[in-house]
Amino acid sequence: MSEITATYIVRDAKHNPEKKAEGIALGLTVGSWTDLPELDQRQLKKHKGRVVSVEGTGLDVNSDTVATIKIAYPAVNFSPDLPAILTTVFGKLSLDGKIKLVDLEFGDELKKAFPGPRFGIEGIRNKLGVYDRPLLMSIFKGVIGRDLPFLLDQLKKQSLGGVDLIKDDEILFENELAPFEKRIISGKQVLAEVYETTGHRTLYAANLTGRTTQLRDKARKAAELGADALLFNVFAYGLDVLQELREDEEIAIPIMAHPAVSGALTAADEYGFSHSLLLGKLLRYAGADFSLFPSPYGSVALEKQQALSIAEALTAEDQFMRTFPVPSAGIHPGMVPLLIEDFGLDSIINAGGGVHGHPGGAEGGGKAFRQAIETVLEGKTLEEGALEFEELKSALDLWGLAKAVAK
Amino acid sequence: MSEITATYIVRDAKHNPEKKAEGIALGLTVGSWTDLPELDQRQLKKHKGRVVSVEGTGLDVNSDTVATIKIAYPAVNFSPDLPAILTTVFGKLSLDGKIKLVDLEFGDELKKAFPGPRFGIEGIRNKLGVYDRPLLMSIFKGVIGRDLPFLLDQLKKQSLGGVDLIKDDEILFENELAPFEKRIISGKQVLAEVYETTGHRTLYAANLTGRTTQLRDKARKAAELGADALLFNVFAYGLDVLQELREDEEIAIPIMAHPAVSGALTAADEYGFSHSLLLGKLLRYAGADFSLFPSPYGSVALEKQQALSIAEALTAEDQFMRTFPVPSAGIHPGMVPLLIEDFGLDSIINAGGGVHGHPGGAEGGGKAFRQAIETVLEGKTLEEGALEFEELKSALDLWGLAKAVAK
Repeated sequence: MSEITATYIVRDAKHNPEKKAEGIALGLTVGSWTDLPELDQRQLKKHKGRVVSVEGTGLDVNSDTVATIKIAYPAVNFSPDLPAILTTVFGKLSLDGKIKLVDLEFGDELKKAFPGPRFGIEGIRNKLGVYDRPLLMSIFKGVIGRDLPFLLDQLKKQSLGGVDLIKDDEILFENELAPFEKRIISGKQVLAEVYETTGHRTLYAANLTGRTTQLRDKARKAAELGADALLFNVFAYGLDVLQELREDEEIAIPIMAHPAVSGALTAADEYGFSHSLLLGKLLRYAGADFSLFPSPYGSVALEKQQALSIAEALTAEDQFMRTFPVPSAGIHPGMVPLLIEDFGLDSIINAGGGVHGHPGGAEGGGKAFRQAIETVLEGKTLEEGALEFEELKSALDLWGLAKAVAK
Repeated sequence: MSEITATYIVRDAKHNPEKKAEGIALGLTVGSWTDLPELDQRQLKKHKGRVVSVEGTGLDVNSDTVATIKIAYPAVNFSPDLPAILTTVFGKLSLDGKIKLVDLEFGDELKKAFPGPRFGIEGIRNKLGVYDRPLLMSIFKGVIGRDLPFLLDQLKKQSLGGVDLIKDDEILFENELAPFEKRIISGKQVLAEVYETTGHRTLYAANLTGRTTQLRDKARKAAELGADALLFNVFAYGLDVLQELREDEEIAIPIMAHPAVSGALTAADEYGFSHSLLLGKLLRYAGADFSLFPSPYGSVALEKQQALSIAEALTAEDQFMRTFPVPSAGIHPGMVPLLIEDFGLDSIINAGGGVHGHPGGAEGGGKAFRQAIETVLEGKTLEEGALEFEELKSALDLWGLAKAVAK
């Protein structure tokens, strides 16, 4: 019988996490047990939640007992979709005191209901023909209120700098100046021209926005127009919306999950979801090909351990394709050695200001990043690389070298 | 020009909330300002975010400066839908340090994009023909793994007790034993029989579950079958999904928003959304006819001030219908005086265990609540009521009188 096993960290003012765990296991399944007649117990046995483990880890600063508890919920109790699963394992429970959902282990049977990424790391690499280095992504900057020629000029400069992927700003919505379909059509043309001139291929992820029921048709249209990929603010919609986009055979282009709004669900130590579950495992199971999240180094930084845990969940051994980890926010070329050390070759280095703010513009910025990556992969220091590469030298002069942070 | 004004509480380790506010207002709109050429400034002026106010309120326990900041975002920057609004005002910002989104003020023009409740308090009262008292709602208990006859028996007993509304357990999903459509058809029949026998009308809210794109057809089918209302785990899906259900003319039955999963978004002081915004204003604007939330008194309790702020947002003067506040969780008849004092006549008293756990069963439990309501409205104490009403006396003997809590 398939189950889903939830791991929570609870802070219990009553210092009885065993009792709390038992209350959850029953309260979120059959309701009660010991007072049920034997006949009912036999009938309900397969529906009963089960306390797998309770491990106390001492008292916190408020003198609450901190404990990690694991509860297994029979899959027969819910339909195999994320809204039903989240409502079961963290529905009313999310409102019940200090409790954080840190992991969900899906039984093998239950996993079959989830698609995982359509392309994943391997598929994206195949599209680009790049296998031996981290990919480089850049983001449009200052495009709100700007027209299509402005955007296309930015797109071209970024591509000329050698970035592999370019993503829309996540706050660029449908607008008259630079509509979604026109961005895709003319963006594709610009990138084809760069490819013809330089032989360098860049993929462009257009922001899929609007009302929920219109997303499917918009995404299908985008695919039909030859869009390379879609950016999607999944947490402003819902994980199941992402999954349905992934499952649609008429969409069938890579989906890039943006973490917008997710901080509201993950940032608190005592409440909400762990980063690795929300931005890692659940995005992967639902089918994101890329997951963006704050790196440990930039302007909006995540604790290193948290950032690493997301990447681990996106790429750990599982039956699904691996999702590309994209540590982001305030990245400049001086961070490349640390990012490669932390996230390995199968990750994406993603920069906005660190590309556009380069003294040589977006083209120079992209080159500086590519040079930094090349330098690191050759086993050299960035200082050594700067002797060889002009753009990298300018970047280091401007931003310096990032320092490692403790785990 | 229409705007949306967001109010945040920030905790700023750099002790410069004015700078932080300016960074938000620009960073989430035009990107930069002072370094832009005058021509660009003229072009982008209508897109530029604006700091409305910054009010410091001292230092918190971590010696961070606590400040309330208000930022106005031009509506021209986003499409008039909640995913675009949330991504703009709390997208990457939700990930950027200690920040809580406490309110959103929608410009009048922008409000036109939102439906508000189709029925609201007035419409629900018209359906029931009850105008002079708080409504009474009860919840199925222990129905996971049970068959349809078991549920129908519970439904009948609850209705016979005089409750006005009965809602499915939010963790009851589509299942073979008691499928959604059968619950609606046969539940309606049971409630019609009770009405014919007793003249008492009860509405039944069936849990709308499943994959996102299937919800509309399921809801339309439910409406066609004569369902009284739908229960919906909106936070396991997305606010826009709720709004689309509300806007569908072929659904057109009341929608009850359940707070499942919302604790992950609201519970932390330093992160996420305020209760009044998420469970209050946004649910109302998106079109929920009912909003369930923890009362200040029960097993899963909310601070009184938070619970009151939700009810206030659901019913404050606005151009939308009012949403019924439903303070819930661990409610028993001894809490009725406090609930009426706090939430007034235009609220719903909602109980599960407090109905089913009554010595006289669900029927006795419902009666005890109705007696408690009648007693309070007559200006008597529950002790006085208990002299008159047998079921109320049993309830008070079992659960006692709830004590007020400080605001």
